[in-house]
Amino acid sequence: MLMRSLVFSSELQRLRLRCFSSATPRVLKPGDILRQARYFTEEDVLQYSKVSHDCNPLHTDAATARGVGFEGPLVHGMLVASLFPHIISSHFPGAVYVSQSLNFKFPVYIGDQVISEVQATNLRENKNRYLAKFKTRCFKNGEVLVIEGEAMAMLPTLTVEQEHSKEQ
Amino acid sequence: MLMRSLVFSSELQRLRLRCFSSATPRVLKPGDILRQARYFTEEDVLQYSKVSHDCNPLHTDAATARGVGFEGPLVHGMLVASLFPHIISSHFPGAVYVSQSLNFKFPVYIGDQVISEVQATNLRENKNRYLAKFKTRCFKNGEVLVIEGEAMAMLPTLTVEQEHSKEQ
Repeated sequence: MLMRSLVFSSELQRLRLRCFSSATPRVLKPGDILRQARYFTEEDVLQYSKVSHDCNPLHTDAATARGVGFEGPLVHGMLVASLFPHIISSHFPGAVYVSQSLNFKFPVYIGDQVISEVQATNLRENKNRYLAKFKTRCFKNGEVLVIEGEAMAMLPTLTVEQEHSKEQ
Repeated sequence: MLMRSLVFSSELQRLRLRCFSSATPRVLKPGDILRQARYFTEEDVLQYSKVSHDCNPLHTDAATARGVGFEGPLVHGMLVASLFPHIISSHFPGAVYVSQSLNFKFPVYIGDQVISEVQATNLRENKNRYLAKFKTRCFKNGEVLVIEGEAMAMLPTLTVEQEHSKEQ
């Protein structure tokens, strides 16, 4: 178990370094990536269940989750996916979300380290605003791709508000 | 204003009757629709902002929202969209979400009456479970389509757990 923890810790460290080694761009260009790290607690899942009214027992009952082959209660996929608009709006306050596609590939468990990223793939000016298309991906411990998809948002500017990436 | 309120009230009543006039099916078949009504309060938006860390001022600051042409603070699109997995998991506890696409067509404001529906379009048995595809749509006051997309979920059964549709 200790060995596993050491490997796990080393992998996380490498992932952090890889993810936060480049500075946030000042003006968004195609190819730029913005990232955010987070882990979700039992309290987060409880609070999200309350506000969304989504009380699927897979998120709150370990026995139910294990009964269908999971390791434990899952974080709601839509809560994990909320990292995408969070990243976009924290760097572009006032951004308006237009679309999002989400493919949930692997479960995220309480306590998993999640790193979410949005990569600009297309930027188009539209009446003094910018329609931006992003590739959106979430990874968990050891770079396992857990969610992938695309988002479109209308940005008020391409100037990136600087926010130090923080692990929450 | 009074006339507007009367028309508005009448439209809501008609919408409610239209939406809840048919009984929830006992076994899901292609074409079946499951619905849920809800309105979102300022407190819901605040709680969602806290748990998602999404503090876009469009959701909390009326002046910012009006400055870009909205009538007031918007409910987070991903919070409105959480109605889809909520409907699916309340009728099929233990359902596992596979994918979701979301096109945000019109804003939802605090206090708007939202009616969300998922319509089964394809059902396929897979190892004693059922891969279900749904057309997913949200309407607000007066049947304005605000979100549309598709979802896929793995259901433990096609037997629909009966839940009285309630307005929350």
